[in-house]
Order: sequence, then C-alpha cells, then structure tokens
Amino acid sequence: MIRIASRFLALPSRQISMTEMSEQFKVSKTVISEDMAIIDKAFREEGVGTLKIGRGRSGGAAMKPGFSGNDRSSFLGKVAAVLSSNDRILPGMLIHYSDILFNPAFARPLGYALASDFAGKEPDVVMTSEVKGIPLAIFTAHALGVPMAVCRFRNRPGDGPAVAVHYPSGSGEVRTMFMGTRFLTSGKRALIIDDFMRGGSTAAGMLLVAKEFGAQVIGIGIFIAASEPEKKAVSEYRSLLRLERGPDGTPVVKVRR
Amino acid sequence: MIRIASRFLALPSRQISMTEMSEQFKVSKTVISEDMAIIDKAFREEGVGTLKIGRGRSGGAAMKPGFSGNDRSSFLGKVAAVLSSNDRILPGMLIHYSDILFNPAFARPLGYALASDFAGKEPDVVMTSEVKGIPLAIFTAHALGVPMAVCRFRNRPGDGPAVAVHYPSGSGEVRTMFMGTRFLTSGKRALIIDDFMRGGSTAAGMLLVAKEFGAQVIGIGIFIAASEPEKKAVSEYRSLLRLERGPDGTPVVKVRR
Repeated sequence: MIRIASRFLALPSRQISMTEMSEQFKVSKTVISEDMAIIDKAFREEGVGTLKIGRGRSGGAAMKPGFSGNDRSSFLGKVAAVLSSNDRILPGMLIHYSDILFNPAFARPLGYALASDFAGKEPDVVMTSEVKGIPLAIFTAHALGVPMAVCRFRNRPGDGPAVAVHYPSGSGEVRTMFMGTRFLTSGKRALIIDDFMRGGSTAAGMLLVAKEFGAQVIGIGIFIAASEPEKKAVSEYRSLLRLERGPDGTPVVKVRR
Repeated sequence: MIRIASRFLALPSRQISMTEMSEQFKVSKTVISEDMAIIDKAFREEGVGTLKIGRGRSGGAAMKPGFSGNDRSSFLGKVAAVLSSNDRILPGMLIHYSDILFNPAFARPLGYALASDFAGKEPDVVMTSEVKGIPLAIFTAHALGVPMAVCRFRNRPGDGPAVAVHYPSGSGEVRTMFMGTRFLTSGKRALIIDDFMRGGSTAAGMLLVAKEFGAQVIGIGIFIAASEPEKKAVSEYRSLLRLERGPDGTPVVKVRR
C-alpha cells in the first residue's frame, strides 16, 4: 500500500491503472479499491491532496494535489513575513525574493498552491517566462502532471526553432519574446505562471505568444503582484501574495485575501 | 503509516523527528520504528530510495532518494533514444533537448539520478547557470533537501546585490557571470549541476564563482556531455548522457557507461 501511495505522490495528476496494480501486486481489484480508499483518507488528513478514482473497468486513479485551508494560510503567512524583512528591500519598490523561489522547500509548496488554484480548469501546459518564474512553474506543472513551456528573451542555436512575438513593456518600449515551436500547439489549454507582476506587460506578452500558437489561456497565477499600478495590462489574474506600500512608504508583503 | 511515508516523499533528505511523529499519531516510538522498517522496505522495492534512521533518543529519520539499477538504465536509455531522433538535430553538433528538461516527468527523475550520484558527498547547495539547467538543478536540490544557487548572465535591480566573475568562454572571449550575495557563503559544499557541457567553460566559470565565495565544489553533474572536444576546461565531471558523432556524422545520444 505504501508502494502504491508513493506512485501517486511521485506522479501527481497522472492516471495509474488499477488493473496494472492488481496484476503487479497479485491482489484482486477489490483489494486495490479498498487500498485506494485508505490512501485517499491518509492524503486528505495529511493535506497533500485527494485521490480521484476513474470509472469503468479499465479505470485508473490519480492524485489531485491540494494545498488549502489552514496549512496553506500559515505557510503563505510565513513566506510573507520572511519577505517583509527590512534587509530584503531593493530600490524601486522591489524586494529580494529569488532565494525563496530557488529553494525547493518554498518553491514546491508555492507551486502546489498555484496548481490547486487552477487544477479545476484542467490546463495541459504551464507557460512561464525566464528566469525566476521557472522553479515555481516547474513545480506547478509537476503537481498538474503537465509539461512547462518557457518564454525566452533571446533565442540561441541550441534552443531550436522559435516563434518571436513583440509586445510593449511597462516603460513603453517594444520587447521580443521567443517560444520554441515544440512547446505549444493549437488548442492547448495553457496556465500562465510567473514570479512577479507589476504592470502585467510580461503576462500580456505571454497572452500574445499563446494567441500566436492558437493556444487558450485558462488562467494567470502569480507569486507576488504589486498593488501599484492598480490597473494591469491583463484583465484577470490571481496572486498568492501582494506587495504593498507600508505606512512608512517601504514595501511590505501580504497574503492575498 | 501512509501519512508518515508521504512526509518522507514530500521532503527527501530532510530529518523528520520520531518523537514528533510518535506524539502526533499517539503511538509509541517502538511502533514508529516498526513503521519505519516497513516504509524503508517499500521504498527499496519501489526503487525510490531508502530510509536513513538517526541514532539516539531524539533521533529522526530521512529518506535518501536513490535512483539506480535497472530502472535507472532503462529510463536513461529511453531518454537517449528520444533525443537521438532525427528531428532533434540542430546545426553545429547540437540537439534539441529543452522540452525534455522543461517536462517534470523527465526533469524530476533526471534530477533524482544526479542527486543519488552525489548524495554521498553531502552537498549543502546545488549551483547551476541559467536557463535550461534550472529545472534539472531544482529537482536535484529537492532530492538532496538543499537550496539552489543560480549563476546569472546579467544582473537587474530586482535580482539584488551580486558578485560578478569573469571567465573565458569556449571561443576565447571573456564572459561575465553574476551570483547573488545571498546564495553562497564561505565553506558551503556546492554541487554544480548543468544541462550541457561541450568544452566545459561554463562549469569552469562556476568553479571561479564558488572560489570567489570561498565555497567548496564537491562535484560536477551534467545531463549531456559532448564527446568533442575530449579535453574539457574542468578536470572532473559526471554526465548522465553523452552526445557522440554517429557513423554518418550526425549527433547521437548514448547513456554514459
């Protein structure tokens, strides 16, 4: 049973066939079904997700990762407190957060939190832009059981053929993004994940990339969104945290309500 | 027991206290110890790793992720076969592999393979360089239970203070790398992980970065190393795969022996 549980945890959101498990472990499907119920209960109690059991004889099961409730708010509260420390303030209403995203102990639960926010919309690819969004996006993609597609700001011979898309940056100049032709195809349901949003121009650029490939963007999930400017270049997004101006004018990070 | 197993799997290489578990689940430490033995057996059978149980009364246990034997060779063989496909050949003895590294279904086991190669040397940070090395390095770091430090090729205001290091590129020009001052400190045991090595100049640059911080490099692990040039800018490294010139002159990927 631990072996079965470890398969679900290693490959979240992937279907695992009950028939295969029953053959491999030489037990009946009824026993496997009973095991599933116990594993589901343990996953729920542990706050790591739930088992979704498919219907039909050939049916399999998949673990839908979940990260919600008290565990989630206390974790995000801890991250916000760490980020609000004085020694993280950078000039230009910026804070230093890359060490958080480059640490799997933070990036993994943050990615799982974003995955659980958007799992219901059944994305089949996670889009992000280089560089700091990548660790967050890869854990989100891992939790959702889908690949990641990275918008690059340059394209070199080893990166292969790419589509170039031009978009206006926050400061008004025109910037270029590249997306490898292997990463997106028409009809894909793309979830955009990024580390930071100020005016939303990068996210708007990624919308243009998706459009160019005929992919459908089903949501935009951000680690930290700045409260200023209030008006963003994209109409809808969700962020885990908000960067606000504190009473003394210095930046402070809060959990988004 | 499934709840305990899921904690080890979620946080590989991290110590989990037996006392805490025995208190939380309201069972004696003897029962927890027996559970550990069963979980260890299941992890070994499943090929995901082993439990290392600390000594002493306050002792905890940690899952050392392992990925070796037949599962490993058949997985790497599959990756090599995928990469050797004709439609991945790029000009300049290069192949297209970024979609593999950007897919957690590949990046995770590849990162675990590198982690199991170097776990014995007990690194306490994984160093990589942007961009394609990041997904591999973050899963390696996750498996080892340590943070990741990323060498950047530029430094912007949101990235915070950084040390700049200059190093010769393969073509002879001098390039610059930046490492944020928060990421490395003197005495750290750094494992360098990167996606590709041709001449080894990027890895040699990362050695200079480590030296600048007074960190000790305990190993270099690479996803794909090119067989040409035979002489690299670094004296020792391990790669999972090798990129060789096939009989007809086109690139072919093989599992490193």
